[in-house]
Amino acid sequence: MTKYVYSFGEGKAEGSSGMRPLLGGKGADLAEMTNIGINVPSGFTISTEVCTYYWEKGRYPKSLEEEREKAVSKLERAMGKGFSDRENPLLVSVRSGAAISMPGMMDTVLNLGLNDKTLLGLIKQTGNERMAYDAYRRFIQMFSDVVLEIDSEKFEEILSEKKKRLGLKYDNELSVDDLKDIVRKFKEIVRKEKEESFPDDPKKQLEMSIDAVFKSWGNKRAIEYRRLNKIPDDLGTAVNVQAMVFGNMGKNSGTGVAFTRNPSTGENKLYGEYLIDAQGEDVVAGIRTPSPIAKLAEEMPKSYAQFSEITQILEKHYLDVQDIEFTIENSILYILQTRRGKRTAQAAVKIAVDMVKEKLITKEEALKRIEPNQIDRLLHPQIDPKAKVKAIAQGLAASPGVGCGEVVFCADDAVTASKEGRKSLLIRRETSPDDIHGMAVAEGILTSRGGMTSHAAVVARGMGKPCVAGCEAIEVSEKKKEFIASGKKIQEGDVVTIDGGSGNVYLGKVAVVEPKITDEFALILKWADTKRRLGVRANADDPESAKKAREFGAEGIGLCRTEHMFFGKDRLPIMKEMIMADDLPERKKALNKLLPMQREDFIGMLRAMDGLPVTIRFLDPPLHEFLPSHEELNIELATLKLQDKNPKRQKELDELINKVASLREVNPMLGHRGCRLGIIYPEISEMQAQAVFEASCILKKEGLNPIPEVMIPLVSDVKEFINQKKIVDEKASEVFEKECVKVAYKVGTMIEVPRAALTAGKIAEYAEFFSFGTNDLTQTTFGFSRDDAEGKFLHKYVEDKILKENPFEVLDQEGVGELIKMAVKQGRITKPDLKVGICGEHGGEPSSVIFCDGADLNYVSCSPYRVPVARLAAAHARIKG
Amino acid sequence: MTKYVYSFGEGKAEGSSGMRPLLGGKGADLAEMTNIGINVPSGFTISTEVCTYYWEKGRYPKSLEEEREKAVSKLERAMGKGFSDRENPLLVSVRSGAAISMPGMMDTVLNLGLNDKTLLGLIKQTGNERMAYDAYRRFIQMFSDVVLEIDSEKFEEILSEKKKRLGLKYDNELSVDDLKDIVRKFKEIVRKEKEESFPDDPKKQLEMSIDAVFKSWGNKRAIEYRRLNKIPDDLGTAVNVQAMVFGNMGKNSGTGVAFTRNPSTGENKLYGEYLIDAQGEDVVAGIRTPSPIAKLAEEMPKSYAQFSEITQILEKHYLDVQDIEFTIENSILYILQTRRGKRTAQAAVKIAVDMVKEKLITKEEALKRIEPNQIDRLLHPQIDPKAKVKAIAQGLAASPGVGCGEVVFCADDAVTASKEGRKSLLIRRETSPDDIHGMAVAEGILTSRGGMTSHAAVVARGMGKPCVAGCEAIEVSEKKKEFIASGKKIQEGDVVTIDGGSGNVYLGKVAVVEPKITDEFALILKWADTKRRLGVRANADDPESAKKAREFGAEGIGLCRTEHMFFGKDRLPIMKEMIMADDLPERKKALNKLLPMQREDFIGMLRAMDGLPVTIRFLDPPLHEFLPSHEELNIELATLKLQDKNPKRQKELDELINKVASLREVNPMLGHRGCRLGIIYPEISEMQAQAVFEASCILKKEGLNPIPEVMIPLVSDVKEFINQKKIVDEKASEVFEKECVKVAYKVGTMIEVPRAALTAGKIAEYAEFFSFGTNDLTQTTFGFSRDDAEGKFLHKYVEDKILKENPFEVLDQEGVGELIKMAVKQGRITKPDLKVGICGEHGGEPSSVIFCDGADLNYVSCSPYRVPVARLAAAHARIKG
Repeated sequence: MTKYVYSFGEGKAEGSSGMRPLLGGKGADLAEMTNIGINVPSGFTISTEVCTYYWEKGRYPKSLEEEREKAVSKLERAMGKGFSDRENPLLVSVRSGAAISMPGMMDTVLNLGLNDKTLLGLIKQTGNERMAYDAYRRFIQMFSDVVLEIDSEKFEEILSEKKKRLGLKYDNELSVDDLKDIVRKFKEIVRKEKEESFPDDPKKQLEMSIDAVFKSWGNKRAIEYRRLNKIPDDLGTAVNVQAMVFGNMGKNSGTGVAFTRNPSTGENKLYGEYLIDAQGEDVVAGIRTPSPIAKLAEEMPKSYAQFSEITQILEKHYLDVQDIEFTIENSILYILQTRRGKRTAQAAVKIAVDMVKEKLITKEEALKRIEPNQIDRLLHPQIDPKAKVKAIAQGLAASPGVGCGEVVFCADDAVTASKEGRKSLLIRRETSPDDIHGMAVAEGILTSRGGMTSHAAVVARGMGKPCVAGCEAIEVSEKKKEFIASGKKIQEGDVVTIDGGSGNVYLGKVAVVEPKITDEFALILKWADTKRRLGVRANADDPESAKKAREFGAEGIGLCRTEHMFFGKDRLPIMKEMIMADDLPERKKALNKLLPMQREDFIGMLRAMDGLPVTIRFLDPPLHEFLPSHEELNIELATLKLQDKNPKRQKELDELINKVASLREVNPMLGHRGCRLGIIYPEISEMQAQAVFEASCILKKEGLNPIPEVMIPLVSDVKEFINQKKIVDEKASEVFEKECVKVAYKVGTMIEVPRAALTAGKIAEYAEFFSFGTNDLTQTTFGFSRDDAEGKFLHKYVEDKILKENPFEVLDQEGVGELIKMAVKQGRITKPDLKVGICGEHGGEPSSVIFCDGADLNYVSCSPYRVPVARLAAAHARIKG
Repeated sequence: MTKYVYSFGEGKAEGSSGMRPLLGGKGADLAEMTNIGINVPSGFTISTEVCTYYWEKGRYPKSLEEEREKAVSKLERAMGKGFSDRENPLLVSVRSGAAISMPGMMDTVLNLGLNDKTLLGLIKQTGNERMAYDAYRRFIQMFSDVVLEIDSEKFEEILSEKKKRLGLKYDNELSVDDLKDIVRKFKEIVRKEKEESFPDDPKKQLEMSIDAVFKSWGNKRAIEYRRLNKIPDDLGTAVNVQAMVFGNMGKNSGTGVAFTRNPSTGENKLYGEYLIDAQGEDVVAGIRTPSPIAKLAEEMPKSYAQFSEITQILEKHYLDVQDIEFTIENSILYILQTRRGKRTAQAAVKIAVDMVKEKLITKEEALKRIEPNQIDRLLHPQIDPKAKVKAIAQGLAASPGVGCGEVVFCADDAVTASKEGRKSLLIRRETSPDDIHGMAVAEGILTSRGGMTSHAAVVARGMGKPCVAGCEAIEVSEKKKEFIASGKKIQEGDVVTIDGGSGNVYLGKVAVVEPKITDEFALILKWADTKRRLGVRANADDPESAKKAREFGAEGIGLCRTEHMFFGKDRLPIMKEMIMADDLPERKKALNKLLPMQREDFIGMLRAMDGLPVTIRFLDPPLHEFLPSHEELNIELATLKLQDKNPKRQKELDELINKVASLREVNPMLGHRGCRLGIIYPEISEMQAQAVFEASCILKKEGLNPIPEVMIPLVSDVKEFINQKKIVDEKASEVFEKECVKVAYKVGTMIEVPRAALTAGKIAEYAEFFSFGTNDLTQTTFGFSRDDAEGKFLHKYVEDKILKENPFEVLDQEGVGELIKMAVKQGRITKPDLKVGICGEHGGEPSSVIFCDGADLNYVSCSPYRVPVARLAAAHARIKG
């Protein structure tokens, strides 16, 4: 028969810390502490299996009642107290405790066991009538709320009224008589609401409370929390029933919370606070100011010494920082709870390194202790935690860091501000490639639309620039150059601060703290490098970003998007000229103007990455992205015609509209882009290849070591690749001959449509490397347009758990991952030493990096600021794998 | 050592009909005929290997010269004639001949061996000086053109001038002296152009001619022909050198061409024509009218009997209709060529059936003889071949059949015409779903843009309506209601005829012949049904099409697109109401209006298909397709604002624009459509499910046997499917309970994005059937938007052989096919009896049908008019597999 109830107490427990799934975190730790000799109030844990049983079948297992009765008897014996004992009554707490902590989400009942008779016993035991009545009224209110489901407001009203009438501010100013009156009134409410009196049999109280806690697993709050934190619904909670101890029994009693090390800084020093003559909830209630834990050494030296020793025992036992709750009842120290202490990223790093130095844990364990996502924050400035500010709006934390400046509402204004030496913050409803030059000079970007992978978010992350995206709480008017947030109108020139790490938007300039790449952090990354197999490169489109990436440890550029280079103010007009060209000679003329600029781009990139590979992707977006929109042009034309104005512009518009119409596409994502451009307009690929090789030759002559890797985008058939490779190889020979220098180079391809993955074996016959473009591969594998899906249905999909994650943030291993594995396998059958990488957004997302390691990729490539994250995740892949 | 030259003659040949790849079609057949005792002029064939050798290495194999010399000697001995022999000169023809016939594409030289001296021998032998000089001048001109590459115009000028001066009309009116003068002048041209005299050594002539023919494999015409007919470039041609025989040696000579059976009707009767005292080219030159072959029995009874016998021998030898060229030289009958006779679809069917009846071939062989694509034409009216008409333009043959009517330029005008009893032809630049109601009533559709799979083409094929698409030769002005073709302006109301089988557009009404489903055709399809394993269903959206499909042998509906039902004039406004609804109650109100209409739709479909399954796909397109375009609305609004007019409409427009803007998508193909609609708006799926089951119950109560199969579109994850299946199942129970009737039904899914194929094993746990939507699956697997790719790059891809075929016409077996095989395999592992079909356009394309058979699908589904094609192709799959 399944055992459902596990007792602990008197130095012995039926459970242990290994039984978290069954006993929940709290229950397992209580058992574990009991077993290692820590003084824990006795009690028992009802397992999570009872919870899942209940939620599956709508009733409890038959054997539960008997087991519970036995456990209660055992507890009574252990404590030398009894339920309903008028002399020495047993009071207990009933608490939830799942395997994964869900703080505050489920219900708790304290002081259970009280009734008019046992109350007298409590008074006798404690000699504190006021405390006993206070406990009683609290119990009635809590039980009524949690178990009887009577609106808590009704009880609060009586309390408030009483205090108001007496002119009191705090509950603890109430006299014993006041409390007696309140208890009487509370009971009346119960009678009125439930048409029966408050249950005064402690066993009944216990049964009802346990039932309520199990049911609270299914309350809205808990469901929502699990949804947000991706906790499975079938995990279930355990219920812990534990003897109450009281920290409010006078001067020899107290209660507190402490961390074995400082959770903010990581400093190895007991950190926490306590209150004398108080209950746990008083510490957080803010009525009295708790004292720092060090002061306990003066006030209760014996207890402090005892506690201090226990914290050491617990940290050594769990080999991690502990967050410990204690109560001192009449000089006896009880430990109520210990758990892994939460910590800041900075503390996590310091603690991990210190613990290695203290020989408590291995380097591998230290690496495991740090969540890769967490350290992202260490690389960006943060809002000063001491700053007293209130956000005026909150959007998505799209790209970390703090940005502050005068608000501007178009890219050109950002450029003007920059030229005049003013810092600006670019506010847009959403951004488009036309805004790139403005984004590049702004201190940060704030948009009211778009998700975590909107244009603004992706580009900002690439640039390492703070971005708050999809901030729907603000109303942007680009025409009026203003936005409204929290009822305030913010106009062009007003100073605003955004925090891309939290998504908060603040009015005015907010103080920040600069990130420190501490020695410990550098050490952790060094350890990670020794453990990882995967290479880590960066996605960067300009020398500045490339340099940054190198500082962060990038071992090359995995993706340099050449199109971003054409959106610059000086290039866009020439690009337009090229697109508008009527014939080949005209187009070549425009391309010849772009050639020296593009050559300079590549010189900059290859110089910054001297000695490391730079993967240069040829032009990818459809050409119409470089032209104004069909709709705007048509509205302008219609307007001019109606007014019979400016015939010259009308003619110009007519031509432009014709060109735009001929280029316009129904589904640009699946349209004339990628290598399809280079195949229809080989002269574009020729120009780009020439620029790559001329740049390489120039650097080589300077004595540098440029390593260019040309990457052909959007290949779906090997013949497309062959077509483009031929152009590249021919240009290379031509340039090398002219320059009398040779530079080693590779030509490879993006794998970003399913067919490329499916025919990878053939493509590998010609391609020297693969790089998975998982953004587009995700779009085509799911048939999801990123631009449309996130706003229209993807959010709901994740909310309703139709998909576990947004596949544009976390790589979909089941579908997209399957294609990746297939392609790697087939590619390596053809070419065993084929180099394979990934350059989608996923290259910097830890779980995706771990997948890439398992799929045997050679490297991941991500935005510069994610490089340390990827380094650590790559180490995790090896350690945890 | 490789043998390059194969002789034939004197009843014995070194080659045979099995050696087509090596000897080409003509060479192999000449050898074969020689071997079976047919009197063929002797000669030899130089193999295709020499051609490929030459095109690879730029020179000929070393041993070729010696082999050729030997073959010439053998030929001289066989004919008792000699090169350069002044008494009895050997004259030969040099002809190309590839394994796959490329008529007229490569070069030929006749009468080779003539010079001033052998000419005298020819005169002596034939006693016909005029004929000899005529042959000489023809040889010089042909050789100069083909071998020496002198512009043929220069020779024609001399001929024309001569005839003009003499007042003659035809070449054959020239006297011997005239011809002598012409020969002299021809030689002068050669001397002038080449700075040397005309080569008079026959061996030199031969060597040069052979070289020229091999080189003609690489001429532009031939390359273009191969590109169009998908003949590989590395096949190469053989060269046939054969002794000349002359049909122009007087009354006992003649020449002709005949088919063993009538190639138009299939009638089993010798069919052809001949000329007495003439050379082969005279038959086609049109100077003299040839006589029907039957007349030869009167004019040359002995030769006719001989020929008639030989035709029987050849047909029985090759077991197929033969197309035979013959020459009678002084009463001796020579067979110059025999080949498989080309035939019309109608003839192909009759001949195949007749030959089975005559016990010449098996039923299987008969089925093999008919190309599935060919019979498509038998199901549509055709332009009367006797009608003397000239096309004014030609576009893509997008949907077969002839359509004739007054031209209209918008859907509404087509509807008006229809109401007034006038036949109309809808002309559009391109069509959109908004045009459906017009397309439905028009006699045919003509568009100036879009490819074989454009909206117009796909919908027209589905409706079985003639369509010429992408007719770029016409200029359509929808505003002016006119189009321009061949310089003519055609206005609204003018009558035009289109032939969707050829892509031709004619002015006025053109006579047509109605298709006959002959007994033979019915028999062939019956035989096909006994051989095939694959089921054949039809894609149909209305009862009319469903009935048609059933007539053509469809065994159910594989795809009923419910969205087409909402584009009707009476429904579109309600659909718009539903979309514009601000909240759920409003949306439900609109849906309630659609419910009875949708129910009637399904009653119609299920009734037409009583006893057969009807697969009903739930709403698929994005909702914005039902609303006007953002751009049009904005232009209207801008115009009204500027004119300060109609404030009410302005307000309306503002609202409409907001809604359209919120629904508008960057990539609608990958946007909020398919099951994503039903998940976000479950009430839509509920309404559709209710309509399906209410319709089913009504029919069941009538005593019919409705078999509905609900199909969920665009599933990418099993959870999407589970979500929608739940709605369907719940509605079914609800309706069955209310109606007190139960109807068996299935719920399955489209597999149309790669992820569905990749996770098919999981989806099959819940889905009762799969249907591959290969249109969308092709789009997502390649990352090609069909709407954009065909106009922008796909055409070029096929032209440049980057892709062998347009993957939207012929299923891409390598990529898309791989996903299909994967999904079938995984799906059947989960559910061994999983029913799997295909409902993309490919379901009616023969090579794709054969693939589907191999991939173990249960059925294909295609447009009603393609059902017979699919039945035959499915039989081919089994017979040829």
